[in-house]
Amino acid sequence: MHVRFLSGAAAAALAAAFLPAAPAAAEEGMWTFDAFPTERVRQAYGWAPDRPWLDRVQAAAVRLTGGCSASFVSPEGLVLTNHHCVVSCVQDLSTEQNDLVAAGFTAATRGEERQCPGQQAEVVTAISDVTARVQAAIGTSTGAALARARDAAIAAIESESCTDPERERCQVVTLYGGGEYKLYRYRKYSDVRLAFAPEFQAAFFGGDPDNFNFPRYALDAAFLRVYENGRPAATPAHLRWNPRAPQPGEPTFVVGNPGSTQRLFTQGQFAMRRDTIFPVLVPLFAEYRGRLISAMAGDAERTRTGADMLFGVENSYKVYIGQWQALRDREFSGRLAAAEQDLRGRVAADPALAGQIGDPWAEVDAATATYADFYTDYLMLEANAGFRSSLFSYARALVRAAAERDKPEAERLPGYTASRLPLLEKQVTDAAPVYPWLEELSLGFWLSKTRELLGADDPRVRELLGRESPEAIAARLVGGTRLGDEAERRRLWEGGMAAIQASDDPLIRFVLATDPVSRAQLDRFRAEVDAPITAAQSRLARARFAAYGDSVYPDATFTLRISYGSVQGWTERGQDVPPVTRIGGLFERATGAPPYDLAPLWAAARDRLDQDVVFNFVSTNDIIGGNSGSPVIARDGSVIGTAFDGNIHSIGGSYGFDPRLNRTVSVSAAAVQEAMAKIYGADALLAELNRAPARRRR
Amino acid sequence: MHVRFLSGAAAAALAAAFLPAAPAAAEEGMWTFDAFPTERVRQAYGWAPDRPWLDRVQAAAVRLTGGCSASFVSPEGLVLTNHHCVVSCVQDLSTEQNDLVAAGFTAATRGEERQCPGQQAEVVTAISDVTARVQAAIGTSTGAALARARDAAIAAIESESCTDPERERCQVVTLYGGGEYKLYRYRKYSDVRLAFAPEFQAAFFGGDPDNFNFPRYALDAAFLRVYENGRPAATPAHLRWNPRAPQPGEPTFVVGNPGSTQRLFTQGQFAMRRDTIFPVLVPLFAEYRGRLISAMAGDAERTRTGADMLFGVENSYKVYIGQWQALRDREFSGRLAAAEQDLRGRVAADPALAGQIGDPWAEVDAATATYADFYTDYLMLEANAGFRSSLFSYARALVRAAAERDKPEAERLPGYTASRLPLLEKQVTDAAPVYPWLEELSLGFWLSKTRELLGADDPRVRELLGRESPEAIAARLVGGTRLGDEAERRRLWEGGMAAIQASDDPLIRFVLATDPVSRAQLDRFRAEVDAPITAAQSRLARARFAAYGDSVYPDATFTLRISYGSVQGWTERGQDVPPVTRIGGLFERATGAPPYDLAPLWAAARDRLDQDVVFNFVSTNDIIGGNSGSPVIARDGSVIGTAFDGNIHSIGGSYGFDPRLNRTVSVSAAAVQEAMAKIYGADALLAELNRAPARRRR
Repeated sequence: MHVRFLSGAAAAALAAAFLPAAPAAAEEGMWTFDAFPTERVRQAYGWAPDRPWLDRVQAAAVRLTGGCSASFVSPEGLVLTNHHCVVSCVQDLSTEQNDLVAAGFTAATRGEERQCPGQQAEVVTAISDVTARVQAAIGTSTGAALARARDAAIAAIESESCTDPERERCQVVTLYGGGEYKLYRYRKYSDVRLAFAPEFQAAFFGGDPDNFNFPRYALDAAFLRVYENGRPAATPAHLRWNPRAPQPGEPTFVVGNPGSTQRLFTQGQFAMRRDTIFPVLVPLFAEYRGRLISAMAGDAERTRTGADMLFGVENSYKVYIGQWQALRDREFSGRLAAAEQDLRGRVAADPALAGQIGDPWAEVDAATATYADFYTDYLMLEANAGFRSSLFSYARALVRAAAERDKPEAERLPGYTASRLPLLEKQVTDAAPVYPWLEELSLGFWLSKTRELLGADDPRVRELLGRESPEAIAARLVGGTRLGDEAERRRLWEGGMAAIQASDDPLIRFVLATDPVSRAQLDRFRAEVDAPITAAQSRLARARFAAYGDSVYPDATFTLRISYGSVQGWTERGQDVPPVTRIGGLFERATGAPPYDLAPLWAAARDRLDQDVVFNFVSTNDIIGGNSGSPVIARDGSVIGTAFDGNIHSIGGSYGFDPRLNRTVSVSAAAVQEAMAKIYGADALLAELNRAPARRRR
Repeated sequence: MHVRFLSGAAAAALAAAFLPAAPAAAEEGMWTFDAFPTERVRQAYGWAPDRPWLDRVQAAAVRLTGGCSASFVSPEGLVLTNHHCVVSCVQDLSTEQNDLVAAGFTAATRGEERQCPGQQAEVVTAISDVTARVQAAIGTSTGAALARARDAAIAAIESESCTDPERERCQVVTLYGGGEYKLYRYRKYSDVRLAFAPEFQAAFFGGDPDNFNFPRYALDAAFLRVYENGRPAATPAHLRWNPRAPQPGEPTFVVGNPGSTQRLFTQGQFAMRRDTIFPVLVPLFAEYRGRLISAMAGDAERTRTGADMLFGVENSYKVYIGQWQALRDREFSGRLAAAEQDLRGRVAADPALAGQIGDPWAEVDAATATYADFYTDYLMLEANAGFRSSLFSYARALVRAAAERDKPEAERLPGYTASRLPLLEKQVTDAAPVYPWLEELSLGFWLSKTRELLGADDPRVRELLGRESPEAIAARLVGGTRLGDEAERRRLWEGGMAAIQASDDPLIRFVLATDPVSRAQLDRFRAEVDAPITAAQSRLARARFAAYGDSVYPDATFTLRISYGSVQGWTERGQDVPPVTRIGGLFERATGAPPYDLAPLWAAARDRLDQDVVFNFVSTNDIIGGNSGSPVIARDGSVIGTAFDGNIHSIGGSYGFDPRLNRTVSVSAAAVQEAMAKIYGADALLAELNRAPARRRR
């Protein structure tokens, strides 16, 4: 359940909760910490967290920049998250001779913990409202000027607010698609190391067929540790590890960073996803997936080095399929339409309000129609360029960073302002393996699909291909580039545009030559889609606040949220699905054939394991991709599990939450403890996790 | 532009022409020979074919059972068709050492002509109306009984009507989805040999990117010859070969077997295609295509042996994409909706008629809703089972034929009645190479996608997989089966159910064990979809005849039709697209990089070729997949080209014809003659083609 921001970067939208009668349904909501619905929770559970409880939890909540969530679970920087949030790191640390993805990894001592390339951990330390300043900067501007003014204001706020870029990161977050802007200040940790990861097959038992399904038997948990100055960081604010069974009905709080929802989209935006975006995106991913599967088949080393990519692609694919099905479902889409009608009705009933906000729906429709006209161009030439090629990403980041750093801050693209560069630099210059076969596959795929979707005679396609074939270009670029070497990337990063211009690296030259074609798409998107939608959305947000007050929460933005719920199964086609599975069930489900084969260490440990320990469980918490790794927190503030998935119904949660069906899937702390003790011998980590609270708090 | 009947066998529908104002627009229509619109043509061109002209053409028109059209062009059985209609045969005749697909094939003498496995050529000799008999058999039955009664009547008519199964084939064709039933009697030729095929790269220059595009430079032509008793068959009825340039504006007639259109579908059926069928089918083909591309990459022998499959899959994929886009296009789908409204309005305005026909639209909607409920099951378990695995097709045909032959004729599945068995037997028992890697890929793909789409816990999936993985089953079945050997297939065919039951062939055993799961889907489709739609459609047809008279033509059914039109370009985004390309243009378009590289013989012959010879041309004829290989006939009855494709707009022709945009793409006889003379040295064939008419008619 990785979060990916592929299909329209700035496409978050506005205020419109799912069930028109009650703007946020029971247990619905990804709430910001400064607007927790205390009364609603108290009514549901007879108790609600108070401010100190919320503050303690916020201080222990970790964001992983790779797109996941996590939490501190010891005073010495130990971080609980999902296995699938660290599998890229585990793969980066593996070699053909020593495949840690297959074998798992347990650091017996801290000295054995190993740094994860490109990974950064972040903890929110303060949130403040900067809406007035950003909106004043925007003023009455429109189009490209609006986007520029907004982004310049955001860059200035971020630069001014964080004075210690080694330890801090400042980020202005757009909420309600432009209705609010908040400054989030983070304490950041750039040295993140792997402490524990089970075998892939234990973490992902059932593989893609069981992904987003329940009952489930996956030990999708792992531990990282954050370091400072080469030593484990002190993290006095942490959650107590509580390896007890979750109890049916007990309240649970999931704290993390949901990546992206589109619940506040207008009908026009939903229609564009249904009729324009998914019909292109889903087949694109399907074909890439097919290419990947065949390229790996029967080749052990490719199977090893392509595993993380395949997981990510299949995960995204399943999400797209599910989102699309939700939008094609008549009942589901009928509820979305009814929600919009409700808001329109309330606005119409209030002439003063109606006069203020005008017709933002029509404005969004117009911008969306424009977007639909060039969506495929934008997707292939800009948003999706290189199709997951790491080398291409490096080259583009190097070329663009060099170009943007030569400009005044206020004129740069949003990803290249002073506050954003440190993480980008880390991601570009950290050492990480590159797999040429996979790079060539990705680049060749991207170029051939671009030709297919835009047409062989499109001048931009001719610009990309010249007189070569997609496959020949991919082979030439991957074969000739030196960007797999982090020293070369470091040299080009530090050398800036002079070094870039002087480089004869074929991939750098390719990106230099073709980036104008890509940037033209980005410029168009910003001026003709992002800007008018931002303008319309700030008025839509106003309408929504007027209509529903503070019962409205913003769409997910990969920033810290809290969701409340309880341990609870659901009813599927008349059958009750119980809320928990137990370790014994794993052995019953295992057929011996992939992906239903047991991890070897588990097969060997079968008799030692307590078959009754709760393995995975579901709860009514409202989460989405990006929440992966979030702690599941009990009323007493202890962590009883980590959320790693949703059930199949949860995928529609991108657009609306259905409390009868949407479920969060978590691995219990009890199962993690049982496995670490009886299978992995992770004694030192267990001791650290289970140290007596009295001692822990000294 | 192969025709494939994948997405809903019996889903043809009823009378509703595209433009409501004029039921069939200018040049629209795939007309049966007994209802040629003589007056309409005369008005358009000041001349129209008379009955003798039509009879001569009909007698020279050939259907190829692989899904293509063709024509006799000499008195000695020589047949003109497309290269892509014979490429399967060319591949079957190739070996790793002698790749005729790449090198091309020219039989210098008749002794060198080589038999095409599974290929049969057919010529219509008589058409008669059997509507009354079939509809009487149906009576007032419904559901499964309706389907059984209809099919039993059809089987009886076919069996009674053809008494010489060695030379004849009888086929009852359902027109207007059940509004009419016609008996087609064919003269059949089971010994079809390859005489000439150019190199693949010459026939398919521009590859998938240029497929369905124009301007185009493809020598997509080939020659077969039909044999009788080991000697070339006498075919006195043939078309005169006329290698002159087509003239802009001249009338052209395309005669062939369009495979399948859905122009008479109801709105409910269109919606099902748009919202249910394509969202499943397109990603399925996309992933299979990706698997195929990667499996072939860098492996010369796989590239050779997978070429035909890849062509077929990419061709289908492009068709689906185009059809789907047409249905999502607002203007296009608006015209479809208006056409239905027009018919509904006319019915409503005539109370007597309205009383007779009731509400067939609602009946179709109900059946379509049921179909949507189990479409994916039906697709994966029945219609698409085995996903293009030849071995699976053999096994299923053997198992089903054995079971069905043990039943009385009237109780058999439609494909296994006496009149249908001879062709099936030929297809099953002809020798043809099988490529294990491709079989394993296809079977593994089918099983894994079935699990994905139906779910790992679906009992039918468990029936298919047992405790094995999809990949392991595919490897076991392909590795263990002996069905690649035509002698073994012959033995099992002749041995009937006793031999099947006694066989320990793992693929036979797999199909025997799982066929009940597949048949359950077929039974459900026949009873709950096919039968109610047939019943509703016979009344819809009546409504349409009442409203529009004989200006209505039936949807395509892979039976003989004639389309009229003229050589004419079109306007694309304000630019005129000229109607012809010339040989010189090929050399200008060639970049040297696949698929825009020249076939080596063409590169070598460049200076010898007349650069001004017309290569490909477009005309306003209304065709669809299955028409591939159709002769393009001039007013004087001579053949001036062979149709091999449509432009990109023609794909929407499945649902409606737009005379401004839809174009047929043909290769000129002039280009074929130029290449055969100056590149391929096909002197004997050229002499035969160009023999003086006086001598030819002796």
